[in-house]
Amino acid sequence: MKKLFTALSMSIAGMALPVSAQTDFQADSIFIRKIYNAALAEGKSYEWLRHLTQQVGPRLSGSDGAAKAVVYTQSVMKGEHFDRVFLQNVMVLHWVRGAKEKARIISGKQKTEVPIAALGGSIATPKGGIKAKVIEVTTFQQLRELGTEKVKGKIVFFNRPMDPTKINTFEAYAGAVEQRGAGASEAAKMGAIGSITRSMTTRLDDFPHTGSMRYAAGAPMIPAAAISTNGAELLSKALKANPETEFYFEQNCEILPDAPSHNVIGELKGTSSPGKFIAVGGHLDSWDFAQGAHDDGSGCVQSIEAVRILKALGYQPHNTLRAVMFMNEENGMRGGITYADSAKSKKELHLAAIESDHGGFSPRGFGIVGAPAQKAKIQQWTKLFIPYGIHELGPGGGGADIGPLAQQGTVLLGLMPDTQRYFDYHHAANDKFEAVSKRELELGAAAMASMLYLIDKYGLE
Amino acid sequence: MKKLFTALSMSIAGMALPVSAQTDFQADSIFIRKIYNAALAEGKSYEWLRHLTQQVGPRLSGSDGAAKAVVYTQSVMKGEHFDRVFLQNVMVLHWVRGAKEKARIISGKQKTEVPIAALGGSIATPKGGIKAKVIEVTTFQQLRELGTEKVKGKIVFFNRPMDPTKINTFEAYAGAVEQRGAGASEAAKMGAIGSITRSMTTRLDDFPHTGSMRYAAGAPMIPAAAISTNGAELLSKALKANPETEFYFEQNCEILPDAPSHNVIGELKGTSSPGKFIAVGGHLDSWDFAQGAHDDGSGCVQSIEAVRILKALGYQPHNTLRAVMFMNEENGMRGGITYADSAKSKKELHLAAIESDHGGFSPRGFGIVGAPAQKAKIQQWTKLFIPYGIHELGPGGGGADIGPLAQQGTVLLGLMPDTQRYFDYHHAANDKFEAVSKRELELGAAAMASMLYLIDKYGLE
Repeated sequence: MKKLFTALSMSIAGMALPVSAQTDFQADSIFIRKIYNAALAEGKSYEWLRHLTQQVGPRLSGSDGAAKAVVYTQSVMKGEHFDRVFLQNVMVLHWVRGAKEKARIISGKQKTEVPIAALGGSIATPKGGIKAKVIEVTTFQQLRELGTEKVKGKIVFFNRPMDPTKINTFEAYAGAVEQRGAGASEAAKMGAIGSITRSMTTRLDDFPHTGSMRYAAGAPMIPAAAISTNGAELLSKALKANPETEFYFEQNCEILPDAPSHNVIGELKGTSSPGKFIAVGGHLDSWDFAQGAHDDGSGCVQSIEAVRILKALGYQPHNTLRAVMFMNEENGMRGGITYADSAKSKKELHLAAIESDHGGFSPRGFGIVGAPAQKAKIQQWTKLFIPYGIHELGPGGGGADIGPLAQQGTVLLGLMPDTQRYFDYHHAANDKFEAVSKRELELGAAAMASMLYLIDKYGLE
Repeated sequence: MKKLFTALSMSIAGMALPVSAQTDFQADSIFIRKIYNAALAEGKSYEWLRHLTQQVGPRLSGSDGAAKAVVYTQSVMKGEHFDRVFLQNVMVLHWVRGAKEKARIISGKQKTEVPIAALGGSIATPKGGIKAKVIEVTTFQQLRELGTEKVKGKIVFFNRPMDPTKINTFEAYAGAVEQRGAGASEAAKMGAIGSITRSMTTRLDDFPHTGSMRYAAGAPMIPAAAISTNGAELLSKALKANPETEFYFEQNCEILPDAPSHNVIGELKGTSSPGKFIAVGGHLDSWDFAQGAHDDGSGCVQSIEAVRILKALGYQPHNTLRAVMFMNEENGMRGGITYADSAKSKKELHLAAIESDHGGFSPRGFGIVGAPAQKAKIQQWTKLFIPYGIHELGPGGGGADIGPLAQQGTVLLGLMPDTQRYFDYHHAANDKFEAVSKRELELGAAAMASMLYLIDKYGLE
């Protein structure tokens, strides 16, 4: 029946729907309206986020904060009487920042302190820091063309800004983030002794935005840090005025042995197909100096809220619905990988997974990764979302943590909120509870609950 | 030719466009992309807003701030070498708050200070304030049903919250704001001596949100104030615990004689039809304790920016394009009325007017007020806006200041940004520069410039 309906609908795309579908549309409209009412008038996500960000606080993988976040979200789902709440063991990468970084621009006699933050995964500088002349580049190509002669013994300063003309700021991020992720090794291959990357934001401010980096095999490991955009502007200006300008920085970070941690999972048992799953999730870890309100406390509380609302409305799911708090997204992806591996070994077939990791902003769409027919089926539901300001079902991807589920054919969906403010806060100390709008957060939770409901009700075949 | 094209397009709505239209679509796409690039990479609106909000500051009609804002925006447009920049005389309502209000809840021996703000247009309390028992109601109907016996000599407390389940917060506002605008007279008719209204926001916080109120003819004038939502919750709770709870407040506001002020207007002269106009505007006045960043500094700088960008791109308008800073929107509407009256008497035919007065948030659409064919013509341009996240051309109105132009058949358009956060700041002290996102502001300016361009190029016949 479902297959017939899909084929029929696709052949008449854009025309009137058959009577049975119209009936469903009405029932679905009414149910989705109830979901939104529950989120906006009796929502719990905002107060959960307040606790997670202000009481638990920063929660980098392996830290006490991360452990507390596991306990807290577990207790929230138990408190909501989910059918089953459990922890999944995950060995996480364990990197610590150590004492706060120091950095200054030295131009002749002038010394100017600037805000930097070691990149996640970076090594420390030698004790006392390093000081060297600076080579400013905007591309790897430009760096290579300079030749080792000019780069050797220096600090490479990657200063290509995110392109402000991209409407979707994630595209701007994608166009600049290689400097953070791979810059240090590119610089090291040319003989550099350190690497400084302009923070990944279009704003001009004093917050260094950290993020993960990786050392390429075979390249010497050199210390790598992010500098605030104002700091980057200053450094660039200083270099233009005086090419002999030096940069000094000291950082004390350390890569520790992998540590035990957990994904946190809460379930509503399916009534007809309890062995099939639909997951909705966000990641529980954050960077160490950030409350991780948008990234990704929002996604966590929205995921719990999506399942809570369906439960509160008395919805009896066909499949088992799971809220998943993934651990270690920021600097290891171990939670997502472990979750998919476990699902595979336990033969837990996941029809779909929905991730929220683009911030707690006004929802505008869902990215979809799946077969064309599955995508088309979801896109038929667009009309149900338009009253809630969601017009875009399709563009964009699923999400980092649910990505590994693709191996079992799971359809991946990513909540796509308005992207304009995300990088104002991303991986920075201002990603605080106050940066999240209650209504925007709640609308995201309601959108996720609605999508969860539709996929559970209609399947994706 | 234009008429033929419109008729043709409407008859084949949803199908492929004729070749000529496709060519235009391409050219328009390219030009609109240039507009957005100019706004996002070289925009000036954000720095103008910084100055207007932080250097000029609050600018209630008749105040020094308002006069400074006139001078500042005039100088900005002159600095951009608009073809003509001029002031239009407007006599504005002149209300002043005087010394800061005092208010407390008195329940037995317990006295609790709460934040209130006199409503614009209200009279003062007698010196020393007033103190009385409190009648809490949520509707006018409920108030009337109580009868004068129960209301006489008391303070009426209007405590109907904005409905959080409305997706468009302006609908929630529309459903609650009568309490602020007309509550005092409704209460006075029943013999009340004062009126306190819950602030118009869905948030729970400590900011009283002011706004205009009007005394009904024939009703006694009693002092009226807004109380913060946290204060309203406290008062309601106190009344439930002890119906004998009293409320005390003192306010020192004053209605002064009308004062001279100005609309500020900048023009780009039309090349083929200089006697026809398209206006784009916002209002320059704000409430007295607010920087008026979203309301409506944003609309002002976006309007100037829209015209500046077209000029910077070398666009030669057919019609004369005007950026208009309206004065006295908040408590009198005199600027909008004067502007329309002047246009009428000078026979300045306005094809269209575009207003931005819904905050500097991510744009999602334009409200359109016009004949069905005009609306349909504008809606054909939707595809051009979708890459910029704008999907909704049609729903919603034009705007308060451009409203009076309707008398001459002007098509009215209102920029419709995402509404979720607007009432977090509306008419409150936290409506500050920092509450505005640079990118969101700029996207609004670009949307307005794009609409201005399309209307100028194609007309609305």
